[in-house]
Amino acid sequence: MKERILTGDRVTGKLHLGHYAGSLQNRVALQSQYESYILLADVQALTTHFANPERLRNALRGITLDYLAVGIDPEQSTIFVQSMIPEIAELTVFFSMFVTVNSLRHNPTIKAESKNSGLDEMYYGFLGYPISQTADILFCKATVVPVGEDQLPHLELTRKIARRFNELYRPVFAEPRPIISENSRLIGTDGNAKMSKSLGNAIELDSTTAEVELKIRKAVTDPSRIHKHDPGHPDICPIYAYHHAFRPEGAAEIYAECTKGAIGCTECKQRLCTALNTLLEPMRERRSFYESRPGDVDDILSSGTRRARAIAQETMQEVREAMSMNYF
Amino acid sequence: MKERILTGDRVTGKLHLGHYAGSLQNRVALQSQYESYILLADVQALTTHFANPERLRNALRGITLDYLAVGIDPEQSTIFVQSMIPEIAELTVFFSMFVTVNSLRHNPTIKAESKNSGLDEMYYGFLGYPISQTADILFCKATVVPVGEDQLPHLELTRKIARRFNELYRPVFAEPRPIISENSRLIGTDGNAKMSKSLGNAIELDSTTAEVELKIRKAVTDPSRIHKHDPGHPDICPIYAYHHAFRPEGAAEIYAECTKGAIGCTECKQRLCTALNTLLEPMRERRSFYESRPGDVDDILSSGTRRARAIAQETMQEVREAMSMNYF
Repeated sequence: MKERILTGDRVTGKLHLGHYAGSLQNRVALQSQYESYILLADVQALTTHFANPERLRNALRGITLDYLAVGIDPEQSTIFVQSMIPEIAELTVFFSMFVTVNSLRHNPTIKAESKNSGLDEMYYGFLGYPISQTADILFCKATVVPVGEDQLPHLELTRKIARRFNELYRPVFAEPRPIISENSRLIGTDGNAKMSKSLGNAIELDSTTAEVELKIRKAVTDPSRIHKHDPGHPDICPIYAYHHAFRPEGAAEIYAECTKGAIGCTECKQRLCTALNTLLEPMRERRSFYESRPGDVDDILSSGTRRARAIAQETMQEVREAMSMNYF
Repeated sequence: MKERILTGDRVTGKLHLGHYAGSLQNRVALQSQYESYILLADVQALTTHFANPERLRNALRGITLDYLAVGIDPEQSTIFVQSMIPEIAELTVFFSMFVTVNSLRHNPTIKAESKNSGLDEMYYGFLGYPISQTADILFCKATVVPVGEDQLPHLELTRKIARRFNELYRPVFAEPRPIISENSRLIGTDGNAKMSKSLGNAIELDSTTAEVELKIRKAVTDPSRIHKHDPGHPDICPIYAYHHAFRPEGAAEIYAECTKGAIGCTECKQRLCTALNTLLEPMRERRSFYESRPGDVDDILSSGTRRARAIAQETMQEVREAMSMNYF
């Protein structure tokens, strides 16, 4: 019996190399080992994008294509839509009865936002998103959740809520354990610590060969390196970071050549482009396969959602029994 | 086409004369005039009773019997269970995206609780109950809501949320208007301003003749009235308040006799007991009719809930379309 793993993404825009390095690659690798559930988090995306749901609608199918393109296998992984599992909303409401505002404020994201704009100005739904995230994980009784180091407190709250529910009513939920992702962040093409669509420093997974080349050409490198033979500092260079992430077999050589001034940035970038396009080419093929079959993509989403819903209904039945709320 | 009215009760315990005077009497009178929906608010009861759902379970059937006993006609009124309408939870989650913590804190109940124990110690679900209440009203598109004067700010938030939803997405919800209940509070048998089960000053609707007599005998009266011929102060006397509420045709006479010292408290109480038992007797008969038919009561609840659910599903469909979240 395989363990169940829950992953997912907020559906606010297309996925990029940062997502690939930080989670998608790992998901593809784990999908045969675990029973894999992948959440398209459109309700969570509403916490920040409620005024623009049209954007979420577009992102939903875009991200599904990204998943299929990177090699998520819909036979092995269940891709499903959060807003179509009403049981997640029900669990969110039930859990929120015994979670204090205080314990939500310990969440690092909420804490930061609360410092910026004040708790009073925060939207109630945003304040509660760690509870909604807990419902995402517990509705399907996932026992394993891959997280970045920075997301550990989120999972700690999930474990706390599971424990509290079990104490209050009856043991229904296992406490999920984290798998820590090593590459939880990828540097942006502008040198910003995080590649992010909203910062305009991302290379999307659906980029063409020419788009990859343009973005890499424009990407910043070590600014102290003026001439080809100046010794470089790969540790601060996004291009080296990408070699490390996407062409690990050649990264040590690049590191050595760069620090010795034996390779120029132009050539280093060319080698990276070749590697990136080699990585992206099979994704482009799979994407174009599914792009020409929109009905198949809908079927993947609807059958995945049906599968997730069936589990959600079983869990809710147990929850209602545990809470003596199975009236008739 | 009749307008739709939404009323209901938190299912925390049996109903009493305070509920009858404040709302039930009115509901019975209005049920032929409006399309009447009556909510058994078990999820809202969890905001304060999450540690004891067994109590809610028991109260649920008890309150249903109270409804049937006072003359709520299940052919005219739809009695339904909140927790069995998942769409209420879904709407709660959607609405919570665009309601700030600040606007919740303006709610008088939240404001009072927040002063007592601090916002941080408040449970997240309790803080959000005005949103959940909004979902209770809007899921069935009720246009009329009977409220006590003190609950007007609650309805104002509902109207604000409906407006905001319509602006953000598409007009889906009408803004419900209040009908102000005159007798929103009934004095307790101990003289406390509010009759309440938890204060032990209530006369339950399922009281026997002997129980009514005992409680009225023990009830406080004007403390300055020592002798039968002392002039009384009916305005501060619970017994007079009950005459006024449940025997209005004789209240003026009682008032005059009491202030003149022409009637003693014992006789005044006896006349009240007679009136109360006259009021309660047909309720006892209807209650005992339904008590011996638990299957019928379950049918009333399940068919009412099914009816409400069908409306909820229609509304959610509209909501999803308005929010562009009807994906396939």
